Amino acid sequence: MSAVNTETIDMLGGVSTNTIAGLLLKIGNMRTRAIRGVRPLNRDCCRFVGPAFTVRYVPVREDLTESASLASPTSHLAGTLDNLPRGCVMVFDMMRDETSGCVGDVLMSRMIVQGVAAVVCDGGMRDTSAIARMAIPVWCAATAPPPSARSLMAADVQTMIACGGVMVRPGDIVVGDEDGVAVIPAHLAEEVARKGVEQERVEAWIRRKVERGAKLAGLYPPREESQAACRAWVAAGSPEEG
Amino acid sequence: MSAVNTETIDMLGGVSTNTIAGLLLKIGNMRTRAIRGVRPLNRDCCRFVGPAFTVRYVPVREDLTESASLASPTSHLAGTLDNLPRGCVMVFDMMRDETSGCVGDVLMSRMIVQGVAAVVCDGGMRDTSAIARMAIPVWCAATAPPPSARSLMAADVQTMIACGGVMVRPGDIVVGDEDGVAVIPAHLAEEVARKGVEQERVEAWIRRKVERGAKLAGLYPPREESQAACRAWVAAGSPEEG
Amino acid sequence: MSAVNTETIDMLGGVSTNTIAGLLLKIGNMRTRAIRGVRPLNRDCCRFVGPAFTVRYVPVREDLTESASLASPTSHLAGTLDNLPRGCVMVFDMMRDETSGCVGDVLMSRMIVQGVAAVVCDGGMRDTSAIARMAIPVWCAATAPPPSARSLMAADVQTMIACGGVMVRPGDIVVGDEDGVAVIPAHLAEEVARKGVEQERVEAWIRRKVERGAKLAGLYPPREESQAACRAWVAAGSPEEG
Amino acid sequence: MSAVNTETIDMLGGVSTNTIAGLLLKIGNMRTRAIRGVRPLNRDCCRFVGPAFTVRYVPVREDLTESASLASPTSHLAGTLDNLPRGCVMVFDMMRDETSGCVGDVLMSRMIVQGVAAVVCDGGMRDTSAIARMAIPVWCAATAPPPSARSLMAADVQTMIACGGVMVRPGDIVVGDEDGVAVIPAHLAEEVARKGVEQERVEAWIRRKVERGAKLAGLYPPREESQAACRAWVAAGSPEEG
Amino acid sequence: MSAVNTETIDMLGGVSTNTIAGLLLKIGNMRTRAIRGVRPLNRDCCRFVGPAFTVRYVPVREDLTESASLASPTSHLAGTLDNLPRGCVMVFDMMRDETSGCVGDVLMSRMIVQGVAAVVCDGGMRDTSAIARMAIPVWCAATAPPPSARSLMAADVQTMIACGGVMVRPGDIVVGDEDGVAVIPAHLAEEVARKGVEQERVEAWIRRKVERGAKLAGLYPPREESQAACRAWVAAGSPEEG
Amino acid sequence: MSAVNTETIDMLGGVSTNTIAGLLLKIGNMRTRAIRGVRPLNRDCCRFVGPAFTVRYVPVREDLTESASLASPTSHLAGTLDNLPRGCVMVFDMMRDETSGCVGDVLMSRMIVQGVAAVVCDGGMRDTSAIARMAIPVWCAATAPPPSARSLMAADVQTMIACGGVMVRPGDIVVGDEDGVAVIPAHLAEEVARKGVEQERVEAWIRRKVERGAKLAGLYPPREESQAACRAWVAAGSPEEG
Repeated sequence: MSAVNTETIDMLGGVSTNTIAGLLLKIGNMRTRAIRGVRPLNRDCCRFVGPAFTVRYVPVREDLTESASLASPTSHLAGTLDNLPRGCVMVFDMMRDETSGCVGDVLMSRMIVQGVAAVVCDGGMRDTSAIARMAIPVWCAATAPPPSARSLMAADVQTMIACGGVMVRPGDIVVGDEDGVAVIPAHLAEEVARKGVEQERVEAWIRRKVERGAKLAGLYPPREESQAACRAWVAAGSPEEG
Repeated sequence: MSAVNTETIDMLGGVSTNTIAGLLLKIGNMRTRAIRGVRPLNRDCCRFVGPAFTVRYVPVREDLTESASLASPTSHLAGTLDNLPRGCVMVFDMMRDETSGCVGDVLMSRMIVQGVAAVVCDGGMRDTSAIARMAIPVWCAATAPPPSARSLMAADVQTMIACGGVMVRPGDIVVGDEDGVAVIPAHLAEEVARKGVEQERVEAWIRRKVERGAKLAGLYPPREESQAACRAWVAAGSPEEG
Repeated sequence: MSAVNTETIDMLGGVSTNTIAGLLLKIGNMRTRAIRGVRPLNRDCCRFVGPAFTVRYVPVREDLTESASLASPTSHLAGTLDNLPRGCVMVFDMMRDETSGCVGDVLMSRMIVQGVAAVVCDGGMRDTSAIARMAIPVWCAATAPPPSARSLMAADVQTMIACGGVMVRPGDIVVGDEDGVAVIPAHLAEEVARKGVEQERVEAWIRRKVERGAKLAGLYPPREESQAACRAWVAAGSPEEG
Repeated sequence: MSAVNTETIDMLGGVSTNTIAGLLLKIGNMRTRAIRGVRPLNRDCCRFVGPAFTVRYVPVREDLTESASLASPTSHLAGTLDNLPRGCVMVFDMMRDETSGCVGDVLMSRMIVQGVAAVVCDGGMRDTSAIARMAIPVWCAATAPPPSARSLMAADVQTMIACGGVMVRPGDIVVGDEDGVAVIPAHLAEEVARKGVEQERVEAWIRRKVERGAKLAGLYPPREESQAACRAWVAAGSPEEG
Repeated sequence: MSAVNTETIDMLGGVSTNTIAGLLLKIGNMRTRAIRGVRPLNRDCCRFVGPAFTVRYVPVREDLTESASLASPTSHLAGTLDNLPRGCVMVFDMMRDETSGCVGDVLMSRMIVQGVAAVVCDGGMRDTSAIARMAIPVWCAATAPPPSARSLMAADVQTMIACGGVMVRPGDIVVGDEDGVAVIPAHLAEEVARKGVEQERVEAWIRRKVERGAKLAGLYPPREESQAACRAWVAAGSPEEG
Repeated sequence: MSAVNTETIDMLGGVSTNTIAGLLLKIGNMRTRAIRGVRPLNRDCCRFVGPAFTVRYVPVREDLTESASLASPTSHLAGTLDNLPRGCVMVFDMMRDETSGCVGDVLMSRMIVQGVAAVVCDGGMRDTSAIARMAIPVWCAATAPPPSARSLMAADVQTMIACGGVMVRPGDIVVGDEDGVAVIPAHLAEEVARKGVEQERVEAWIRRKVERGAKLAGLYPPREESQAACRAWVAAGSPEEG
């Protein structure tokens, strides 16, 4: 379902969204790859990595409320939600509408059974008390009791969408941690993973030095010099006093 | 103080705001009955049901700051706040002003002594550290140190108000849980309570089936068929394998 | 670094931001001294008092991204961040931009080593998972993975700034607790501290009476009468039944 | 209908909203007396003065749409709109809802017949093409085709309301010109009118001097010195070279 | 290109957006059919009727800026914009992004050559000085110098979109006048046209009576009685004194 | 006062803000160089070019209202406003505060006497009726009767500021036309002027061809081919049929 291999996805699990956002700014000057305005329902269950499966909503037309129901016989979304690819991250474009809730506990249960990795939506979410206790990271902009049919209806799935100000294409790699959610274009995932793992190592080394009293000047943000010193330290077996 | 009887209020304690919002959408197409932009100070103490007691604020006129004080001799609000009906839900229309705080710990203590069921305001709240530890659900849009007289003054009590985009009339039934706050017109409370309890039962039955692997198609959202199957299962004594 | 002495700063540690905001409304009609739109990363580590050290950002110019880096050789901010006065509160004017993060874990570690008392910014913050576990109060408007160079660059330090709608001057006393962050003009700090401690005592006495059933009328908000009664009670040795 | 006499109202017709806002800031530190977010439908017909007649809206409850109609038999607003006091300024509190229109051409025609001086609302307005050609100043936040019953219903008339962030009481004097709309508490109208006329004279004199090359220093904003010089010039018969 | 015939479209040219919005509220309770936040570049050239041709934008990905260009060889939008159906109304979903401009004078010239009836977008527009002088109604949310590639890229054409809070489907009938822009579902266009023409006639008759001094009570809003009286008056040859 | 010579400034007078914004996107990927949220008081007097003279405001501290007055003896701004460089564009950073007015008719008269080229502020403006008739382009976000001292005070002049989301440095070249206001970094002004004049010529040639029926494909946006064809046409003496 995505051009990105499992090794890359596993590596990205060890890279923070901070590091990813910083790398995307350097690679191609990408300023708009962190989803804005969303937060995890449960901060203790907010980390995830996986390829995007996209769903797009538009404002409801009131005479279509019935068929706008997620599982109406005339809605193809129901069929879609029963056949999701294992490991995908569901990304919902709700146009930042916080007045209704996208997914409730029944749909979330069905997603978990199918192995969905996480859910991200830039609008509201329902049944959040039950969902926050489930073993799946869920990110949203608000909690909202009304069903999505209150204000929205699904327009299509697996197209290019906007979510929290970020363009998301099916198969883009979506990563979440305590700071937020970042979206990596599929063709850049391998480069970001490789450089990201290296950068995490260098920054941990720097932070350790700073905690022991080192000044920032010449050390951080890391230029070539810092990186070389870190590599040398690793090559020397990461001595305690390094 | 409200036309709604105690049995109905008790039943509504077992119905989620999700279910209520969904039912009100079906009954009379009510799209605007969930208060927006508020959250509980303490998620472990956020559930409540009760009839609304309304207070309306307007922007302060600076030369009236003194008499705008909640307990000024020239303010009738003080008398009001000493004589609240047991079990009521205080609903404050602050016009979504988050720059000042509506109620502090002293007023909240007085409300608790009088048996107030909960406080909902679409603006700020003060003394939130102390209040979050009290045994009363408090919903607000923000925490804010300044007293309400910084920007607001009370206009009247027990009139029709707006709170978080919802019209609230004295005696309307207000319900809160982890997802949010819903407002039920008094004359619909009994119907919503009755249908709500039934719907909760059906959805729990569906969720149990979905968690065991059932597909959504034909099952959820529940049409007549699902509801009948659920009733049959209950009639059969709720067998474990149902 | 500030005209305010240590005794006053210590006294302010026992005065709530509520009390401070109320006093500043009475003294000089100051309505705009509580920073708006910020919240603590960790509610269990949110209290602080100290003189402001100010940093001002402006929107980045994309061709200056490199030198806008906090620690670029052409940025004087790096030198600044290595030489901060012990006990200061870092206040960042990010123009309420929530799309990037002001400070990450490395800079925060350096601040802690130098004895910074707290960090307040009206924009985003990075590495919040790591920072929330550090022993320093951090207030911000959002979490955001991208580095500040995504959208901002430092303009100057220790000038008059705006933070969350409040004018802050270097040396103003900044106080935080669960309700929010208040800013006291340096020349008023002593008066606010003295009156604040007295007011906290009176309000605690009133709350105790209200919890035992006293009405608000004539008691709260405290006029001269309540204050005198409280003083008498204190003078009498604070008897249990007072 | 208002405690303010006709002479005062006539004098205020010659005082700009700028001058009024400046005077109210000096008298009682009133910072919130200019209605925000409204503009005239026709800039060539935007000036007016008169006492406020207030109407308050709340969000509609969908099952009341029919009776929420301005002229429903169950709405007392219809009777009200047929019996308005000559010279009044209609001020509508629409809670800044721009999604529907408050008044259309038929109601406006009825108001004109009754001698209404102007209409101010902080929401939308309908039939604006027709209304902009009528001889009545109309201020609103937006044009909007839907009827007010789309989202609002009248709550009451002639109570204390909020309009564009300003508290308005029945009988307050409302003044409009190209810059905006100011609201003067009734008991201050006479003082504002008297000082305002004087200030307009001084500022015209200063502007004339500045246009001829005078520096601002010592001249503007006018302190006692400038005012005395202006009075002397008037007493001298306003000579051309003065 | 639309299921709606030319006669209906012609009739709708004589019905105001007010009347349309009111009728859609009655038919199917449609509250969200007036596009919000847009205004005409030229109020003297703002009226139009026609079937929608939809274009959807998403946030740009910076490494795709080149191919996001409206006329890039890799963009199919260029081909689309050279082959537009005569009489259509171009409706652009820009997600309310006002920071860049959707269409400039060259593209607008090409649209005019092809007989496009109007352009509506919920974001910015470029070259507005030149475009405001062209003989085509153009509605937008803002003027903005930067090209759309600054922040947006086209996602697809002729799908279901959102524009200013309204769901628009290809072929829906879009109508504009001084008050705003309304969107009529294609299958309702004939009913709205027929009832709309009748309602315009009744309201003109009522307004004429009100201007001559009639009270609103019993006359407006028009119930069955008013409508019958109007029909009788028309049948009687519309006598001057009627 | 600016490193940019008069010839460049004159050339920029013939380049639209559209063209400038497009060029800055290509040169250095500058996405944030068009001031947002401002409009001209008079669309017939909105064009200008000149180097920026910057003024920065912060929120007022209420006890400083008196000295915050633009011309207070303790304010250095008065001296500044009497000594402005001929030809400069005054750019005010009001932090997008629309609740008060930056400049009134007296200050504007003084600026005109000194040869100021234009005024741009991202907040409110006073005396707009008088100012709109003066021969100076004035751009602002709103009209507002209250004086700036209502909510703001000057912090400093000729520093790096933000205006409508754009970083502006003293001496940057600011250009305005019907579409908006663009800010060119001083060191790029010559390149933008030169390329801009060329691009205006090519686009006018393309628009002429499109108006006569040419398709966009291969012609627009202009690639190398179109530009060469245009140059050839100019070299051939701009024949009517070209």
